[in-house]
Amino acid sequence: MTKKIINHIEKEFGVTFRHVETLTEAFTHSSYANDHRDKAIKNLERLEFLGDAVIELTVSEYLYKKFPNHPEGQLTRMRASIVRQESLASLAKEHRLHEFVRLGKGEEQMNGRSRTSLLCDLFEAFVGAVFVDQGMDTVVDILQKVLFPKIDSGAFSHGMDYKTALQELLQKNGVVTIQYKIVDKRGPDHEREFVVEVYVEGDSFGRGVGRSKKRAEQAAAKQALDMLEEANES
Amino acid sequence: MTKKIINHIEKEFGVTFRHVETLTEAFTHSSYANDHRDKAIKNLERLEFLGDAVIELTVSEYLYKKFPNHPEGQLTRMRASIVRQESLASLAKEHRLHEFVRLGKGEEQMNGRSRTSLLCDLFEAFVGAVFVDQGMDTVVDILQKVLFPKIDSGAFSHGMDYKTALQELLQKNGVVTIQYKIVDKRGPDHEREFVVEVYVEGDSFGRGVGRSKKRAEQAAAKQALDMLEEANES
Repeated sequence: MTKKIINHIEKEFGVTFRHVETLTEAFTHSSYANDHRDKAIKNLERLEFLGDAVIELTVSEYLYKKFPNHPEGQLTRMRASIVRQESLASLAKEHRLHEFVRLGKGEEQMNGRSRTSLLCDLFEAFVGAVFVDQGMDTVVDILQKVLFPKIDSGAFSHGMDYKTALQELLQKNGVVTIQYKIVDKRGPDHEREFVVEVYVEGDSFGRGVGRSKKRAEQAAAKQALDMLEEANES
Repeated sequence: MTKKIINHIEKEFGVTFRHVETLTEAFTHSSYANDHRDKAIKNLERLEFLGDAVIELTVSEYLYKKFPNHPEGQLTRMRASIVRQESLASLAKEHRLHEFVRLGKGEEQMNGRSRTSLLCDLFEAFVGAVFVDQGMDTVVDILQKVLFPKIDSGAFSHGMDYKTALQELLQKNGVVTIQYKIVDKRGPDHEREFVVEVYVEGDSFGRGVGRSKKRAEQAAAKQALDMLEEANES
């Protein structure tokens, strides 16, 4: 198994790991480690913790340099749409990382191998492993091949507007009433925070907080999207 | 003003900026830029966007290396308590960054200079500026002086909830029964001490002493965690 992962990573990314055990760790799901608890096998979670922060910085730096005139708010929204679960999960799938991850029996039976959250964790863990074993420059090299061209081609620009995304998702099957209501305003004038709830056909689907009504609405729409995506997975 | 910032940063952190305008940008609040809108002055927000991700990764890497046996959940909780607004704000204050930030008139009058969120943003922007101008190594050097010793001395551990940590660790592999039992109450009423034993699936995993039942339980959970970590290492 390990041999196959090594070969795949070499072919796919041109990276040869110094410490194979780091790579193996990144391709071991907690369910597998649990199934073999007597052997104290390390799972991918610690590398995922690290990889998440590595991706966040790498993408931030790329956006910061590429868009020298974008204000912070725009950069933050772009970053959010790039590092969200679905985007990272599709990278894992495109590069067939999921074919090599070791899963527990139960997880395998429940189709864990194609679950969005698992795919995303796997991609983050892989990046964490590259960072630990090879360093930041190699991470940037890889993302330059697999992620940055997508940013350049505008693949994430549509994802920036969560309200539109939510509307599109819900109205695929016909017209649906979506309403945003301010449910709270808090804090002093100069640090005002808005709390907005989004209702779909009268039912609350999410809630968001922001410095402006617009931002709070976006946050609420995002929460609704996340909720719908999770519901879709299970 | 700029001269003063340069001198202060040199004295305080031993860093000499190559591009002074980056440093000035980090010390310019949006309220100041707004007051002088005709001059198109850059404010600190873009650097804050970057600095936030730089700190997140730097702290993540430090924790990852320092605690090779901590599970991901524990690392995430520690990181959250280290990078929270209040912690970063107090770093800004300790190193007197707020004395040099340029504020708008309104913000100054409303005591913006000592506002937690502004102090936090300022520290993040400063780190962002160091990252842009000097690179990651210099950021790590600075945090090694001003932040990591606090982590080492346990400044962020007080926020740790050992009972929750123990539960998360044990229940990763499925539901487990964890019970806390008072096994002794000792001392006179006014200096009562509780002794609590924590049982996992009926077996004793640790024991703790404290002035309240709650503290004794936390101490017992900590002992159980330490014991499990040692078992993991060997």
